[in-house]
Amino acid sequence: MSDQIQSRYADGILSVSFNRAEKKNALTSDMYAQLADIFDHRATQEDVNVVVLTGGRDFSAGNDLEDFLARPPTTGSDTTAPVWEFMRALSTCPVPVIAAVDGYAVGIGTTLLLHCEFVYSTPSTVFMLPFINLAAVPEFGSSLLMPMRCGYVKAAEMLLLGDRFDSATALQYNLINQICSSDNLMACAMTTAAKLAGKSRGALVQSKALMRRDMEPLAERISVESDAFAKRVASPEAKAAISAILKP
Amino acid sequence: MSDQIQSRYADGILSVSFNRAEKKNALTSDMYAQLADIFDHRATQEDVNVVVLTGGRDFSAGNDLEDFLARPPTTGSDTTAPVWEFMRALSTCPVPVIAAVDGYAVGIGTTLLLHCEFVYSTPSTVFMLPFINLAAVPEFGSSLLMPMRCGYVKAAEMLLLGDRFDSATALQYNLINQICSSDNLMACAMTTAAKLAGKSRGALVQSKALMRRDMEPLAERISVESDAFAKRVASPEAKAAISAILKP
Amino acid sequence: MSDQIQSRYADGILSVSFNRAEKKNALTSDMYAQLADIFDHRATQEDVNVVVLTGGRDFSAGNDLEDFLARPPTTGSDTTAPVWEFMRALSTCPVPVIAAVDGYAVGIGTTLLLHCEFVYSTPSTVFMLPFINLAAVPEFGSSLLMPMRCGYVKAAEMLLLGDRFDSATALQYNLINQICSSDNLMACAMTTAAKLAGKSRGALVQSKALMRRDMEPLAERISVESDAFAKRVASPEAKAAISAILKP
Repeated sequence: MSDQIQSRYADGILSVSFNRAEKKNALTSDMYAQLADIFDHRATQEDVNVVVLTGGRDFSAGNDLEDFLARPPTTGSDTTAPVWEFMRALSTCPVPVIAAVDGYAVGIGTTLLLHCEFVYSTPSTVFMLPFINLAAVPEFGSSLLMPMRCGYVKAAEMLLLGDRFDSATALQYNLINQICSSDNLMACAMTTAAKLAGKSRGALVQSKALMRRDMEPLAERISVESDAFAKRVASPEAKAAISAILKP
Repeated sequence: MSDQIQSRYADGILSVSFNRAEKKNALTSDMYAQLADIFDHRATQEDVNVVVLTGGRDFSAGNDLEDFLARPPTTGSDTTAPVWEFMRALSTCPVPVIAAVDGYAVGIGTTLLLHCEFVYSTPSTVFMLPFINLAAVPEFGSSLLMPMRCGYVKAAEMLLLGDRFDSATALQYNLINQICSSDNLMACAMTTAAKLAGKSRGALVQSKALMRRDMEPLAERISVESDAFAKRVASPEAKAAISAILKP
Repeated sequence: MSDQIQSRYADGILSVSFNRAEKKNALTSDMYAQLADIFDHRATQEDVNVVVLTGGRDFSAGNDLEDFLARPPTTGSDTTAPVWEFMRALSTCPVPVIAAVDGYAVGIGTTLLLHCEFVYSTPSTVFMLPFINLAAVPEFGSSLLMPMRCGYVKAAEMLLLGDRFDSATALQYNLINQICSSDNLMACAMTTAAKLAGKSRGALVQSKALMRRDMEPLAERISVESDAFAKRVASPEAKAAISAILKP
């Protein structure tokens, strides 16, 4: 395995970094395969409460175009392509994912943020969904998720014009949680990671799974939540948490 | 019936108050049962155009935890539990519900706001969805409704971190309509209530029902609306309203 | 054909104008029929990349009420009514639609904006969804689309109170893209139109179609996008666009 994807673990937090700074972290098939492996086999372990995804100076300039032309997906339903494997693994990751984003976040570098729970970026981050400029279309759920985030007319701006936009716009459009200075970016992300590391993993996994369920009738959602809730509050950890509050 | 839930009626407006100030309006099974009864049998009467729900200094500190431990729901699908009966009655209330919220709005005190049409709060309101801290999960549709209100990453903040947040955040996150001073809170709510009291009840009921339909294909929604619209504009009250506008 | 609807074409841009200024562009059955014809038969031509819809000093004061009373739709499912034909044609227009809105945008003059991709308005624009005041209900998808745009409580304000609101509110509520001065309104709209005219029509049509698909499970959306994406990037225009970027 090359060192273009790096990961390390401490105290419930799995940190994953893009490490191809000389190419602004443009992502290759090899890197996607490594990411898929990490998200499938390490991030799912019981000792992980949260994943932090980052890239240093540049989050990612997007798909490496030379690699993409050399190894195009054979069809849209070629779910064995490494990029597909990575995005499936990311979008089904059972624990929360925090992205810390600076510099370029272009193409899939923006798209993948739609599958994270927390996104922190900086005043110098450059976001872009340039697919229309390549005569292509939105990818990996962005045509569904962008209008749900920020409303249809603002999603149209981003997806049909393909212009770059900054963190202030991303914040207004509900793509990110907060703007941090570059110096403070990792501290922001790690503060949230530490909070999540302190929560019940079972409750985190179930809460995330509930939030990510597909649209369904409200009554069905309430019923599903309620089953989960009742089982949760019957658990020893929930009883202990509630009793702790009640103690004088 | 205890006086921990109070209601009174005037001029089309049904006012319902939590009245257990010494416990910051923590809600008990008994209170839920009374609320369910009011929402099922009084709020649905033809003379009611709107319900105003309030709690004085504190809206509600949430479920009374001692009562909850003493009378836990037997299962998540125990739809005979008083809390379930209340939330079903609230979420199917045919007329608009206005919440006037000050002080603590914690747990179900925030969750229930997602089922109201108008929410006014104050600079000192404290909102919180602390379920994750109790090793529990979101309840009564909040895992569906929160991401629809404010976008996924901001919903993740509230549901996965479980921190308290204030009215400025609630306004930004589309949970409330307006921030009013504590002195002015009831006046804000009653002004909107009076406006709604002046509308056609039939049109209000149908408009709310349309807005609360579950997700469906746009073409189906247009068709359903259109049937309702045609019947409405054929009604004497609609004809009178249109004719009044046309009169010189 | 009267001249109450005007259209002209240049450089990929089809401009359509309401032209009944003396009635603030109140729309009649005759005007709807002309609009439906233009959207069905001209806007769908291969040489059109974008439609610009405007009305001069007033966008539209809404349905002409005298005409409406004289020719009411026989039923809600009377899909042969000219207003229905127009709204069907607008909401299924394959290319992006830009609305440039000044003065009154009332009733269907606001509703139709929910079916446009880009909306520019001015500091003096007056928006209003007054259906509740006519004892009527929301129309043409607005009970679905408004809550999706701006969250339920803010949609309730607009649909249940029926008050007028201005461009600052419309911007906050995600109904419009940008506020432009009246002098600059058409320049704003035409700048975006020119950008869209420069994109691949095939990619525009597919991107818009993806964004407007009804709600569906995320996995299904990703699969549909991916099929479209793979076919797109295999196209000569996409290959040319990518190669152009890679050239030194």
